[in-house]
Amino acid sequence: MKLLEDRITKDGYILNGNIIKVDSFLNHQLDIAFLSDLSDEIYEHFKDRGINKILTIEASGIALATALSQKFNYIPVVFAKKQRTKNIGTEVYQSLVKSFTTDKEYTVTVSKKFLGPDDKLLVIDDFLAEGNALKGLISVAEESGAHVEGISVAVEKGFQEGGEIIRSMGHDLLSLAIIESIDDGKFTFRECK
Amino acid sequence: MKLLEDRITKDGYILNGNIIKVDSFLNHQLDIAFLSDLSDEIYEHFKDRGINKILTIEASGIALATALSQKFNYIPVVFAKKQRTKNIGTEVYQSLVKSFTTDKEYTVTVSKKFLGPDDKLLVIDDFLAEGNALKGLISVAEESGAHVEGISVAVEKGFQEGGEIIRSMGHDLLSLAIIESIDDGKFTFRECK
Repeated sequence: MKLLEDRITKDGYILNGNIIKVDSFLNHQLDIAFLSDLSDEIYEHFKDRGINKILTIEASGIALATALSQKFNYIPVVFAKKQRTKNIGTEVYQSLVKSFTTDKEYTVTVSKKFLGPDDKLLVIDDFLAEGNALKGLISVAEESGAHVEGISVAVEKGFQEGGEIIRSMGHDLLSLAIIESIDDGKFTFRECK
Repeated sequence: MKLLEDRITKDGYILNGNIIKVDSFLNHQLDIAFLSDLSDEIYEHFKDRGINKILTIEASGIALATALSQKFNYIPVVFAKKQRTKNIGTEVYQSLVKSFTTDKEYTVTVSKKFLGPDDKLLVIDDFLAEGNALKGLISVAEESGAHVEGISVAVEKGFQEGGEIIRSMGHDLLSLAIIESIDDGKFTFRECK
């Protein structure tokens, strides 16, 4: 998606040689109009799948999921928690995940009340690197009996294996931009189909 | 605000005697149309203050802030992080906070790039209990030279001291519902001015 590629080229930068920062518009400061434009693209791709719920994970996926819900006539958004807090209740689906970004383990947690066999899910996140967060979301969705109709992320790091893993599981994964390489501090994008 | 009070009465419940759960629409599953209605009320109250940025904190404040940004013609949202991750960069404003919900300490962290003297902030959160998260946000805002024009939360626990603390600091605090008591598992609301 040219819109996102252009924005990454303009405002993105690289930290410590391999960490891609898009914090001025996607995951610290949020450009809501831009997120709404991104969600138009996601909606166009998945609009005929009977999707009735959006599943994401705290924190950076929430804004994009909120914008996207509006395109789908305000279907509910459920965001998974990244740890077990004392008041989530005991009735939860959980999956252990290792974060590429922080190098720590956490537990993807969703209350059983909010996922079930009637749900046709669109799974959303801001970034896809090794795919661990998405695998955790898919795992809790499947445990609940919900059906993952599609998955979309804003930025896929094409030089890590997450995208290949998720696609090889048979999921329809829409990445709005796939960064192929970040050599010499410059972004090169893979052509998105 | 009757809309929110009615929803809390209908869908809220009490856990372990004192934890208020509104997780079916506000902070785990999100009713985006409802959050948009809430943000209309916040916009009406603060629309003439020259606000040019929304400051919130991960994770539950992000959806409401996203809906609210749209009312303010898509002003940027900045969400504070709750811990120092290895890739936030070194140039940050920080404030130590103790969470009422989890009983743990964390650090409210905002990149210096996204707050400064030109910012007229509306500070947003989902819940106000002891006011520690808001105090952390106010602290990082003031450290940056930004001006806090107003503060709004969805649910204030009127039986805890946070609201009084924030108001006594001189801030214009709009709580969309103030829960006065939760005796016998029933919600009683304070009349909001």
